[in-house]
Amino acid sequence: MTMNHEEEDPLRATFMYGAGDVRVTEVPDPAIVDPTDAIVRVVRACICGSDLHPYHSLPDTPTGSSMGHECVGVVEDIGAEVTTIEKGDLVITPFAWSDGTCEFCRAGLQTSCRHGGFWNAGDVAGMQAEALRVPLADGTLVAVPVDENSPLIPSLLTLSDVYGTGYHAAIKAGVGPHTTVTVIGDGAVGLMAVLSAKQLGAERIILMGRHTDRTDLGRDYGATDVVTERSDEGIARVRDLTGGDGTHVVIEAVGHMPAYEQAVGTVRAGGVISRVGVPQYEEAPIGFGSLFGPNITLTGGPAPARAYIDTLLPRVLSGDVDPGRVFDAEVPLADVARGYQAMDSRSALKVLVTP
Amino acid sequence: MTMNHEEEDPLRATFMYGAGDVRVTEVPDPAIVDPTDAIVRVVRACICGSDLHPYHSLPDTPTGSSMGHECVGVVEDIGAEVTTIEKGDLVITPFAWSDGTCEFCRAGLQTSCRHGGFWNAGDVAGMQAEALRVPLADGTLVAVPVDENSPLIPSLLTLSDVYGTGYHAAIKAGVGPHTTVTVIGDGAVGLMAVLSAKQLGAERIILMGRHTDRTDLGRDYGATDVVTERSDEGIARVRDLTGGDGTHVVIEAVGHMPAYEQAVGTVRAGGVISRVGVPQYEEAPIGFGSLFGPNITLTGGPAPARAYIDTLLPRVLSGDVDPGRVFDAEVPLADVARGYQAMDSRSALKVLVTP
Repeated sequence: MTMNHEEEDPLRATFMYGAGDVRVTEVPDPAIVDPTDAIVRVVRACICGSDLHPYHSLPDTPTGSSMGHECVGVVEDIGAEVTTIEKGDLVITPFAWSDGTCEFCRAGLQTSCRHGGFWNAGDVAGMQAEALRVPLADGTLVAVPVDENSPLIPSLLTLSDVYGTGYHAAIKAGVGPHTTVTVIGDGAVGLMAVLSAKQLGAERIILMGRHTDRTDLGRDYGATDVVTERSDEGIARVRDLTGGDGTHVVIEAVGHMPAYEQAVGTVRAGGVISRVGVPQYEEAPIGFGSLFGPNITLTGGPAPARAYIDTLLPRVLSGDVDPGRVFDAEVPLADVARGYQAMDSRSALKVLVTP
Repeated sequence: MTMNHEEEDPLRATFMYGAGDVRVTEVPDPAIVDPTDAIVRVVRACICGSDLHPYHSLPDTPTGSSMGHECVGVVEDIGAEVTTIEKGDLVITPFAWSDGTCEFCRAGLQTSCRHGGFWNAGDVAGMQAEALRVPLADGTLVAVPVDENSPLIPSLLTLSDVYGTGYHAAIKAGVGPHTTVTVIGDGAVGLMAVLSAKQLGAERIILMGRHTDRTDLGRDYGATDVVTERSDEGIARVRDLTGGDGTHVVIEAVGHMPAYEQAVGTVRAGGVISRVGVPQYEEAPIGFGSLFGPNITLTGGPAPARAYIDTLLPRVLSGDVDPGRVFDAEVPLADVARGYQAMDSRSALKVLVTP
């Protein structure tokens, strides 16, 4: 294959070698392995809040752990069996790859695809790189009629993960008109959950977060109230705002146990807790005193971002919504470690990575 | 008030004084306290699977714990503000009392009524008795045009709890045509869940239980398969029956941790676990490896039995369904302790109690 970068330059990609240890490394050029593959040159990648979990806890990994699961790129090559994607297409690459044809994909649950998987596992490398191999390209990639220099690129990039993830949270929770919603977490996924709840007609959206610049953006996206307190104080504040009852829906966009406890504390009897923050715990309270007694439903999981692109893309293309505003910093690939530091220290909300 | 029993006879009611210690005790006649009360003479009460939880674990309770939350009876007296229920009405008494007018009741979640509650708490006594005071009679009671000697009484009695509870499980899980369902537990609630899933059009209903007489009744109610194995073997069997995937819905009608683990093991990715067995645990696995990764929804809780009576009553009255078949034994109130023993030893499925 021929990449746009100079032939003699080795390809660069991001690896994590342990907690806090992120480096850009030279790797072999990606190549077509299966006839259903495509090779994508990355136009923009980014760093995800979920990348901060290994950034805090990854044990020493001498071989490195490949990183990145969100990008927009240009198709450089396709395998012999790829039929819907062409060289030169600008594509959105969702954070799971999927065949698009199995029962799970047809049911809109591409994250459980019979033949699919997640990036950065096995021989499928990550997207914080100059280029990558995409398995099952027909099922996975979405071509969009946009130039790679378009100002829409950041918003399109949110469809790889965070916008679809926020939307998944709201859809699984059944948000609609007359629904009151609490969103726990003012990270990019929390803000996308606010935007999604607003799009689905939520009557009231209470955003729990402590970073004014983020909660201000949340207000722009549709939050009607902001609660800066946490734990019991935060719960009491949401209860105060809702006549003591809590909200019909609570979207938990963090993944740590205190956020789950906050969700249990702020959800209304008969309501739904929808989790899209990757849980950093396995066991949690679900008995009579937490979920069962008040008939609380617990839902959520890894978003089938691919499923939601068709729904969400038109309003991104038309400029009706601007989810790309969650990106407030940008680093070149060589400085990706600085991007991790900025997100970890909360000085950046979400960081674009430019190869 | 005047009761049908002789004036000089003191009223008898069931109390539990500790694990395994059930006795019938003399109590004062119930009386109207609030103008919204009714007094109901019990025609038939029964023993619930959930009564076996304290039967196993209640600490010594010298004052006794009032028992029973299911009955059909005849209204003997009403308070001045009761308008929809009259003396002489045959009524179904659901297992929670509720005002019928608050937002939660209007939303069909009478178990979270703003002014309601559960029997056997505070000054509201239980139904394994000759008579009882019913708070908020207009919201709570459902009058049915049936004589107290009708053969329909056992089926009507299931609308107090177990039929509504099984139906709640199926409704909360979203059972419909094309849904495959596993029901864990061949107790009365499990069997009512089978009947309910069948009524809602489930395509396949796998009943997990080990008592042939009960699973045979389950087949009559609509079970298409019976799995007698438990734990990992039971899970493997359900997976075998479903091409390795598990079922869209799993109804957990037991309440013990092994049943929850069985539910997690048998539910299909993207599916729903609906719990109506009262959980005998508070913490349980809900992280990436159990619920989150495969996008499993967990729902359920105490059934608003009151909400479902309107839906389920017509087919009971017409004889289209015969949920009363879950009663396979009957004891006079004086022998209620024997009824508990029979259910605890599994020699009886569900026991009618006749005052």
